[in-house]
Amino acid sequence: MFNEEFHLEQPIRWGMVGGGRGSQIGYIHRNSALRDRLFTLCAGAFDVNEERGREFGVNWGVAPERCYPDYKTMFAEEAKRPDGIQAVSIATPNFTHYEILKAALEAGLHAICEKPLCFTTEQAEELVSLAKKQNRIVGVTYGYTGAQMVHQARRMIQEGVLGEIRIINMQFAHGYHSSAVEANDPGTKWRVTPEKAGPSYVLGDVGTHALFLAETMVPNLKIEKLMCARQSFVKSRAPLEDNAFVLIQYDNGAVGNLWASCVNAGSTHQQKIRVVGEKASIEWWDEHPNQLIFEEQGRPVQILDRGQGYLYQDDEAITCDRMGGGHAEGLFESWANLYRRFATAMDRVIHGESSNVVMDDIWFPNIRDGAEGVRFIENCVRSSDQDSVWVNYT
Amino acid sequence: MFNEEFHLEQPIRWGMVGGGRGSQIGYIHRNSALRDRLFTLCAGAFDVNEERGREFGVNWGVAPERCYPDYKTMFAEEAKRPDGIQAVSIATPNFTHYEILKAALEAGLHAICEKPLCFTTEQAEELVSLAKKQNRIVGVTYGYTGAQMVHQARRMIQEGVLGEIRIINMQFAHGYHSSAVEANDPGTKWRVTPEKAGPSYVLGDVGTHALFLAETMVPNLKIEKLMCARQSFVKSRAPLEDNAFVLIQYDNGAVGNLWASCVNAGSTHQQKIRVVGEKASIEWWDEHPNQLIFEEQGRPVQILDRGQGYLYQDDEAITCDRMGGGHAEGLFESWANLYRRFATAMDRVIHGESSNVVMDDIWFPNIRDGAEGVRFIENCVRSSDQDSVWVNYT
Amino acid sequence: MFNEEFHLEQPIRWGMVGGGRGSQIGYIHRNSALRDRLFTLCAGAFDVNEERGREFGVNWGVAPERCYPDYKTMFAEEAKRPDGIQAVSIATPNFTHYEILKAALEAGLHAICEKPLCFTTEQAEELVSLAKKQNRIVGVTYGYTGAQMVHQARRMIQEGVLGEIRIINMQFAHGYHSSAVEANDPGTKWRVTPEKAGPSYVLGDVGTHALFLAETMVPNLKIEKLMCARQSFVKSRAPLEDNAFVLIQYDNGAVGNLWASCVNAGSTHQQKIRVVGEKASIEWWDEHPNQLIFEEQGRPVQILDRGQGYLYQDDEAITCDRMGGGHAEGLFESWANLYRRFATAMDRVIHGESSNVVMDDIWFPNIRDGAEGVRFIENCVRSSDQDSVWVNYT
Amino acid sequence: MFNEEFHLEQPIRWGMVGGGRGSQIGYIHRNSALRDRLFTLCAGAFDVNEERGREFGVNWGVAPERCYPDYKTMFAEEAKRPDGIQAVSIATPNFTHYEILKAALEAGLHAICEKPLCFTTEQAEELVSLAKKQNRIVGVTYGYTGAQMVHQARRMIQEGVLGEIRIINMQFAHGYHSSAVEANDPGTKWRVTPEKAGPSYVLGDVGTHALFLAETMVPNLKIEKLMCARQSFVKSRAPLEDNAFVLIQYDNGAVGNLWASCVNAGSTHQQKIRVVGEKASIEWWDEHPNQLIFEEQGRPVQILDRGQGYLYQDDEAITCDRMGGGHAEGLFESWANLYRRFATAMDRVIHGESSNVVMDDIWFPNIRDGAEGVRFIENCVRSSDQDSVWVNYT
Repeated sequence: MFNEEFHLEQPIRWGMVGGGRGSQIGYIHRNSALRDRLFTLCAGAFDVNEERGREFGVNWGVAPERCYPDYKTMFAEEAKRPDGIQAVSIATPNFTHYEILKAALEAGLHAICEKPLCFTTEQAEELVSLAKKQNRIVGVTYGYTGAQMVHQARRMIQEGVLGEIRIINMQFAHGYHSSAVEANDPGTKWRVTPEKAGPSYVLGDVGTHALFLAETMVPNLKIEKLMCARQSFVKSRAPLEDNAFVLIQYDNGAVGNLWASCVNAGSTHQQKIRVVGEKASIEWWDEHPNQLIFEEQGRPVQILDRGQGYLYQDDEAITCDRMGGGHAEGLFESWANLYRRFATAMDRVIHGESSNVVMDDIWFPNIRDGAEGVRFIENCVRSSDQDSVWVNYT
Repeated sequence: MFNEEFHLEQPIRWGMVGGGRGSQIGYIHRNSALRDRLFTLCAGAFDVNEERGREFGVNWGVAPERCYPDYKTMFAEEAKRPDGIQAVSIATPNFTHYEILKAALEAGLHAICEKPLCFTTEQAEELVSLAKKQNRIVGVTYGYTGAQMVHQARRMIQEGVLGEIRIINMQFAHGYHSSAVEANDPGTKWRVTPEKAGPSYVLGDVGTHALFLAETMVPNLKIEKLMCARQSFVKSRAPLEDNAFVLIQYDNGAVGNLWASCVNAGSTHQQKIRVVGEKASIEWWDEHPNQLIFEEQGRPVQILDRGQGYLYQDDEAITCDRMGGGHAEGLFESWANLYRRFATAMDRVIHGESSNVVMDDIWFPNIRDGAEGVRFIENCVRSSDQDSVWVNYT
Repeated sequence: MFNEEFHLEQPIRWGMVGGGRGSQIGYIHRNSALRDRLFTLCAGAFDVNEERGREFGVNWGVAPERCYPDYKTMFAEEAKRPDGIQAVSIATPNFTHYEILKAALEAGLHAICEKPLCFTTEQAEELVSLAKKQNRIVGVTYGYTGAQMVHQARRMIQEGVLGEIRIINMQFAHGYHSSAVEANDPGTKWRVTPEKAGPSYVLGDVGTHALFLAETMVPNLKIEKLMCARQSFVKSRAPLEDNAFVLIQYDNGAVGNLWASCVNAGSTHQQKIRVVGEKASIEWWDEHPNQLIFEEQGRPVQILDRGQGYLYQDDEAITCDRMGGGHAEGLFESWANLYRRFATAMDRVIHGESSNVVMDDIWFPNIRDGAEGVRFIENCVRSSDQDSVWVNYT
Repeated sequence: MFNEEFHLEQPIRWGMVGGGRGSQIGYIHRNSALRDRLFTLCAGAFDVNEERGREFGVNWGVAPERCYPDYKTMFAEEAKRPDGIQAVSIATPNFTHYEILKAALEAGLHAICEKPLCFTTEQAEELVSLAKKQNRIVGVTYGYTGAQMVHQARRMIQEGVLGEIRIINMQFAHGYHSSAVEANDPGTKWRVTPEKAGPSYVLGDVGTHALFLAETMVPNLKIEKLMCARQSFVKSRAPLEDNAFVLIQYDNGAVGNLWASCVNAGSTHQQKIRVVGEKASIEWWDEHPNQLIFEEQGRPVQILDRGQGYLYQDDEAITCDRMGGGHAEGLFESWANLYRRFATAMDRVIHGESSNVVMDDIWFPNIRDGAEGVRFIENCVRSSDQDSVWVNYT
């Protein structure tokens, strides 16, 4: 049961880099952070255009002098203030994540960062070490993993309801970019530009969402090797792919397949995860997040619904319903659930607890999870660049 | 396209009656009001227990001295303050709505009220007159009518895509109260107690939601006569019904049928509206609110999805996506869309505009809509009490 | 498990009245009767046009001299032959059923008859008495009731899985006749012509299918009273209705509602039956007949699938799968299951067993079930003709 | 529109090898062949047990002397009769197909054969040559390809509705054999025994069904290379796989992925084909074969339904409805549609037409299609046996 009265002694003083006017993702960051009054928006470098950024921030109630022209200035100036920000969210194009997150950690800030954290595993490991050294929390916005039914799935798998896991289907395959829409859409343009997007488009943009949903549901599987085939059906996107298939061999003998696409014409999202065990399977679809399909061999198919009494009742991640069952919740609730966890973890560090990047008793998508996404893409690209051979996962 | 930067010069100073700890509905009021920073929670009479109410309010950031023991005190004290509340939301059990709303209007407050507004049409008309006289906005929380696809349906019907309307199926038939759960659940107990709930249980509790969804989609139909059959399958609930069927004759020759139930065993919500025209039909289901089914005779069935370019793009109610298509939105967004409309209407009156209860250019569930729900129940009960005869709608 | 080797010592010698070239329903009669080699098509009065009827029959392998110009001649001539027909199927327009069925019984034939058997309860009772007196089997082609999942539902209800039954939703509401298609379609024309169709269009044409599905699932309920509202949205159809709502009060306190329509624009069939009990509900849809939805209050929704081991395995009506689970079966299998039952019952009478219209150990839609459909329509029309008042079921 | 009066001057005299008592597949062969009276069952070698085979045949109306102990005797004896069989269906375990089909062709018989035709491409090519030389028709029972909506998809793709094809998802992944059920089930036992089943289990058993459905929908694509990963989750099945993933590169740049499984726990069939083009996608699911999902980028999702006027009306494969739209058809109708095509092709050869294995104007799954399935498996195994490398398709 969601406790709406939960609050911190002091909300966390919070700023943003990017996510200003016209951003697709900025609003959901703000909405999620502010929803439970656990963060206060105090500062921002919202926009590369200083004036526009200030106007934007002021509209959101930020003092004009705390609307900064860039993140460096913000980190420097805020550090001088007794009431300076304690945490920052990074909602900028991919190629800037590494340097901003690094700077944030160096400035002693907790951070919430869009994926990918960076472009190479080397960078990722550097960031993990830095977070550890600085004793700071980094949350990564794998936003769908805040959904309750994902955690019901995780728990059922953990309890052995499926038996040993054999097969994982991962899919995030939309069709919005079936044609070269980037010609007229800057928000898409940078995603298909290697210098801005990194070594991958759809694997990084949507594929790692599906990957991490699977990792959330089945945390104990380790990838042993994989092979990846990438295509650029809109040719101008090469070398970045707009479609990719990945086959995965896990260390316990299980196998996985992942389909990431932006050219699955006519499809809205089609982010679906299916976990097949020796006794039963589980399937979850982000477009209808309140349901979980459970198929036990030899039994009728079951559809589980969010907010019902038959779900695990001792698990906060499953019962944090902001509204009763039947009333549809969506992506915003999922994100808000994550930001609530980020806040709780950050607050404990602020109050002196030591973190080793993760926290034993608060699950959240952490910097190691973010690093894993970077590693996955790196391995996929390595396979793909060698004519899609199998590569050992490194 | 949702404009997250939209704001009022001054957020509306806002208070609440009821909706404190343990309330099912209080949180969604707060969340919706505060989400777009158009209201500020300044005061409250959250609880019949003064101490608990104060603690609750303080946790939500309300000054302790503005956490009042009851609504009368709140209205009186706030009226004395230069920064007193301008609007109030009423989230108390049914039997108190009339007196509180009346007092609020008399105190010169704008109001947002749970349905039913009151128990009789006479009271409802009194409230409408009072709102008119006081030039105050009253919003009614028919929360599902903020959903974009409902307005896409409304617009398609308005544009004649369905042809003349012939049949309307209305249904809100859940199964949560298939057995006498009220024995251990105070939140259900008052709903089956006539003095607290009024002359009806499920017709008022869920039936009017379905009714008003239909009225929102097809605003021009007028009920000419109806007949209603009510049952109390859990016998101790008599005279209040836990299941009801209503047949409706509209003035243009169209017919409607409504099924309201809390004993539809195993069902989560099953709030579904289907509007059948001479050329096509439309169907919407609250558990999957991002989709709208459109069935044109002689054509493939179509499933429309929220946030897509093929929806009416010139209609703010349809395009107020807080997140792109594919990302599930839910009941919270629907409510927030309504509160945004309430705020806009209230702000215009605050700035001197004269309202005649409704506003020509801002659709929202208004006091007349609320009064219509009361009238509907009254007519249903009148029919039901005469062995379910047809009654002229008065 | 379906036994494909099952056969009678001698297949039943069988003829048809109607169902010739251009008939919508003739083929499924033939296909169902012949499928399991339990009937042999020996004779027919297939068509009002003698020549066309003979050509048709010959194409189906009937000897030309046994292709008759009309049913009277057929019954008379076949009676003279030592190898004359033993059973006849009647697939003619409604207004002829009574006289043909009566003649068939008088000629000592077993019969399979399309519904409605006749137009009045008085006629129906006469036919029941005649069948009894003649010791002949009459099967009625409520074709959907041969579907296995309908019998799984029947059995679950019988076993008390749902608890006491409270509510039955019955619906068969298609949209094929949303406009006046009968202008160019003789097959529809007679259905909206009172002299040919009887006192009702959609109630008789589709409504009784839904009614009898419900009666099959819940055989012990008796209608106490009902009310019916009929509309002719295509005005030229008056006094016959193209849409109707019926509310039903059963003797045990349960209630039912039935929607029959041919103007449910854009809908293909929408024949759905939902039975709500105090503990659980069951729902079946004819367009996806291999599935049964089972919703137990407080448990996940279950989808049962035809041909699975978790269904009742001791019940032939449930396990008569012609193909394993997963492989879709459809209406043809449902009809064939019924014809198989008709054949078995007829064969037993042929071999000397005495029937009292029904057979204790072989369920099939019998003449009493057919009479019940006539009675239902009669009661509906009686209500409707008195401004839709409630009428006691007589 | 299905013409039920269609018949051949003389039904084809037909026999069966295998498919006797206890066979899963024998009944659907018989039912499909006999349904439209285009074949007459004259002879059979139904069973390895002579006595049981004769009893079975006699029950099906075959003369006892034409119930043979084995196929060799049948082919020899029938050849001596003036009324000997003209065609034979082969419904025996996989390892016997090659020799029986070869013998049938050598005996001058037309044949209908279960897949796989044989175990090696070399054998398959030999059979193709033999069929050609003997001028005989061989139909292969890819039974789902008789479904009308599959042909609607084929036609839409042919007409360019999807634009250039980019991606094909093929899947037939059930869960019936999640555990080692073969221990007690002879019908499964031979399928996991290499000598009886050939070099593959699920790829051959279910995978080629999905492959050929895709080939039917998109006939012009050629496989250039593929890679295949096979698993034996039930270890005793090794070297035969119970799960496999295949990635396919087509010659035009399109890609395909295929998932074949019998350990997809809890799944009934999950045979789904999705074809993604540059403009739109199409999806078909064998468990709900009357529907076809059509998703055009930027348009609402469409669900097409069998038997509707908006389907291609000039295409017999699409309009061969045995019953109107809305009435569910299933696998039996799909098979019967194929047998009707087999009969038509065979009859034309019987009447002197020369066939080059296929017929220009009658589409049916022919011996080349069967050979393609064998080739596919061979390539998959070759890849799989080299640690799942990519192999050029040979």
